[in-house]
Amino acid sequence: MTDYEARKTYIARRDESMRLVDQVFDSPFKVADLKVPDEIPLDAKPLFLSLVSDDDRKILQIPPMELLKKLKSGTLKAVPVAGVFCRAAVVAQKLVNCCTEFLPDLALMYAKKADEYMEKNGKPMGPFHGFPLSIKELYALEGRAAHWENPDLINNMQTDNAVLVNGLLELGCVPFCRTTAPQFLMSIESFSPMHGLTTNPHNTSLSSGGSSAGEGAMIAIGASHLGLGSDIGGSIRVPAACCGIYGYRPTNGRVPITGADSLTPGYNAIAGVVGPMASSADLITLFMESIESLELWKRDTFAERSAWVPVNPKEVTVGYLLDDGHVKPHPPVERAIKEFISKMEKAQLPFTVKFKPFTPMQHEEAWKIITGLYFPDGGQFLKDALTNSGEKATDQTKMIALENPNCVEHSVKSLYAAQDVRNKYKTAYQKHWKDQGVDVVIMPTVPSAAIVPNTTKYWGYTCVWNLLDYPATIMPIGKVQESDKKDESYTPRNDLDKAHQDLYSPETYANAPVGLQIVTPRWNDELALKMMEVFSHAM
Amino acid sequence: MTDYEARKTYIARRDESMRLVDQVFDSPFKVADLKVPDEIPLDAKPLFLSLVSDDDRKILQIPPMELLKKLKSGTLKAVPVAGVFCRAAVVAQKLVNCCTEFLPDLALMYAKKADEYMEKNGKPMGPFHGFPLSIKELYALEGRAAHWENPDLINNMQTDNAVLVNGLLELGCVPFCRTTAPQFLMSIESFSPMHGLTTNPHNTSLSSGGSSAGEGAMIAIGASHLGLGSDIGGSIRVPAACCGIYGYRPTNGRVPITGADSLTPGYNAIAGVVGPMASSADLITLFMESIESLELWKRDTFAERSAWVPVNPKEVTVGYLLDDGHVKPHPPVERAIKEFISKMEKAQLPFTVKFKPFTPMQHEEAWKIITGLYFPDGGQFLKDALTNSGEKATDQTKMIALENPNCVEHSVKSLYAAQDVRNKYKTAYQKHWKDQGVDVVIMPTVPSAAIVPNTTKYWGYTCVWNLLDYPATIMPIGKVQESDKKDESYTPRNDLDKAHQDLYSPETYANAPVGLQIVTPRWNDELALKMMEVFSHAM
Repeated sequence: MTDYEARKTYIARRDESMRLVDQVFDSPFKVADLKVPDEIPLDAKPLFLSLVSDDDRKILQIPPMELLKKLKSGTLKAVPVAGVFCRAAVVAQKLVNCCTEFLPDLALMYAKKADEYMEKNGKPMGPFHGFPLSIKELYALEGRAAHWENPDLINNMQTDNAVLVNGLLELGCVPFCRTTAPQFLMSIESFSPMHGLTTNPHNTSLSSGGSSAGEGAMIAIGASHLGLGSDIGGSIRVPAACCGIYGYRPTNGRVPITGADSLTPGYNAIAGVVGPMASSADLITLFMESIESLELWKRDTFAERSAWVPVNPKEVTVGYLLDDGHVKPHPPVERAIKEFISKMEKAQLPFTVKFKPFTPMQHEEAWKIITGLYFPDGGQFLKDALTNSGEKATDQTKMIALENPNCVEHSVKSLYAAQDVRNKYKTAYQKHWKDQGVDVVIMPTVPSAAIVPNTTKYWGYTCVWNLLDYPATIMPIGKVQESDKKDESYTPRNDLDKAHQDLYSPETYANAPVGLQIVTPRWNDELALKMMEVFSHAM
Repeated sequence: MTDYEARKTYIARRDESMRLVDQVFDSPFKVADLKVPDEIPLDAKPLFLSLVSDDDRKILQIPPMELLKKLKSGTLKAVPVAGVFCRAAVVAQKLVNCCTEFLPDLALMYAKKADEYMEKNGKPMGPFHGFPLSIKELYALEGRAAHWENPDLINNMQTDNAVLVNGLLELGCVPFCRTTAPQFLMSIESFSPMHGLTTNPHNTSLSSGGSSAGEGAMIAIGASHLGLGSDIGGSIRVPAACCGIYGYRPTNGRVPITGADSLTPGYNAIAGVVGPMASSADLITLFMESIESLELWKRDTFAERSAWVPVNPKEVTVGYLLDDGHVKPHPPVERAIKEFISKMEKAQLPFTVKFKPFTPMQHEEAWKIITGLYFPDGGQFLKDALTNSGEKATDQTKMIALENPNCVEHSVKSLYAAQDVRNKYKTAYQKHWKDQGVDVVIMPTVPSAAIVPNTTKYWGYTCVWNLLDYPATIMPIGKVQESDKKDESYTPRNDLDKAHQDLYSPETYANAPVGLQIVTPRWNDELALKMMEVFSHAM
């Protein structure tokens, strides 16, 4: 990795903000004194817990809804909790390389605000009073750069906070760090030449998934409970699944995107959305209820009017999709979903849930359509950014754009023809879904448990829902087991499938989580989250 | 006008469907026997009423909400009422040239359905039980062509009804005719080479406005109470204003567009929307309440989830804009709005309404942005359609596209740059509006009372709200008076303004209506319609 200007700026900023942690928060545990072993073990979480101080560990190990309760009742003050999470972020960074910047100054400011509010009013300032919030780097923060892991934007200074960030500050959240993503955010892996690889806390030889790579790793290792991600092809869901946490891609327009949408101004072929990642399903639902209560659509002219309408179904038909017919999931993924269904069929759920198979509709075609619409300029914008900055294209950038056969420079005429194909696919899928008589679909998130770095060639399990703009949410349902043997009798369907099957052994993916994807049609977000809540409580 | 194939097909279909009216509905008044004078008088409405039969006239003159009440109570049966409106459409067609096709077969079928439902169930089938509905030609109707006044699509057969049409059929509506529009629907006037000029019933030397030209004329002459239009630059609002009726452009996504969106597949630079036109404000509100109660977003994957949320404000601040600073409205427009404000300030309204001036933000710039985004292929699509069909471009098609300096062929890069300019304008206008502290803006719809055929060079009073996607609704507030003298002392600001001022004399625009435009920010449709309801009841 050569030392080009953007990387130097990046590292300098990050390290400077790291030093600030000890200055801003007074604690006997100084992050400057941290001694991290040269070799990080496969499972990084025990090491993480051993490196933080005893006092900090007590706070970090409080379950999220209980931590929130303690903050809202005043049992815990926001300022010391903010210090704990700032220090934890540094420890996490040293183990899995997940932070682009630490925000001790902001954390102190907003934590003080919360404490002062409670002092004065005797009640919490909002549903997230004093709750620590990690933020994917792309979100605009006033007075700081937002670069989208685009080295050409390293000094892209922001004059306002993103609309969503402001909403969360009003709800009481305390921002404490910004998190990593792959180059241009256009990969479901976690490598960027600026910061290197973000690794998976469950198995540090694996990727944490992407593009919201740092959020996945931060929450999985236990250094954050709630974070902000973004998703145009699986970027919230894949790291959530890879890291064994929760993550939700809302219907486009429900969560305001202004201030988190500036990588490709004017682009609108595929909708990128923003949404939460969390250590519990309940946090995701609370996030959505609270954010929609603010009516942020009144402040963001690109958001749709929406309000959270809780659902209380009597009976739900769940379609299950184990294999999209193009790339077959590895054995632990299929096994975990089958076990999950069997468990839920026996569980006492608050309403009737019927499972039946769901047949996918041309997901390979969806992959072709969406990869033909991600870069309608044929990737020229990426090439220019790399030329300007001197950064090299990663293999994943080549895979999705620069060497992708579907990534061609469109004329306006061919762009609209491609968008018409997209629209017809949407209309056809709507009918296809209805014809199968299901309310919800459950399925893999990726066809593997986490990801071996630099092996991804297909995002079809997630990006089909970006193409259709269907809400989808992720919950952990298990881990790879030694008994998940490779099926040696399986004959791959195509080269892609063969390459994918060849990757598998239970040793390679040891301890890696499997994330279940729960999907509903557009604007049925409430049902998707209700199912996640019910399923996760029954697990 | 040469006799090219599309025009021959068009005329043959229209005349064949006209003959069907006498065959389908049994009445002593045969449309085949109609004797229409060679010279149509300036005011066509008295002639219209004298040409229909006495029995039909009684039905046609029932005020709309009363007609609906009689149909819903069973006092009037749907089948005979359908016959009356089918015959009235033919009379209207002969006077102002407003129909592309008559639908007596469909009218009978759906009217029978309503009557049979009431017979069987003793109650109306829906809020529009048996109510006649006219439909702009572009809406898909199963088994019929939809050509969008594009001669190249004259045989563009449709396999389904538009989603909105199906919704209205479920609500009880009875479709009885399809109505005219200008070439490619891309004009706020009413001329198409296929059918010629649709004239204004209030002054037949004037245009009825466009592009929903036939709907405006049909409703103004009294041959329909409720119709469907579409609007990408003013196409519902301009004919509503020109014809002295009501018309409403909803926020994009509220009223489902599938089946009325096929002229330019895959296009999405500016959102075209569909919406109602009517003879009363109450019909518009009932339309929206009823349509949204059907939750058609569940059937149209391109619609947003929305529900009608009635508003009951205590105080409303109304900004008034008399002149956009680029093209000054003719004297009757300014006078009518000033009189309207003065009247409303004295009226007993159900809540406090405060008026204050509203300053526009660069509406000339909005016109440049939107005309640069209507045809990102530089109009090649239009040229191809004309070459294929042998139809000639109208002057209005030349004005907005083929000879418009802003209409250039974009690359994907320049398209996204132009869309970014659009987005920044949206964001800036949101702030601009807020800074002025108004809830609603009232303003002209066009800078004249109706339109002298083939004179339009600017849609800035309406298209700025398409660019911003703000809901806007139209109500009649007066007519041109002899005393509306030309202001001879006025010095035009620019060539466009000069050409516009030169058109004016009270004689040229005699009897022409002035339509007030009522605008609110995105998703505040309920407030716009509430203001229209309150204002129109106070008039």
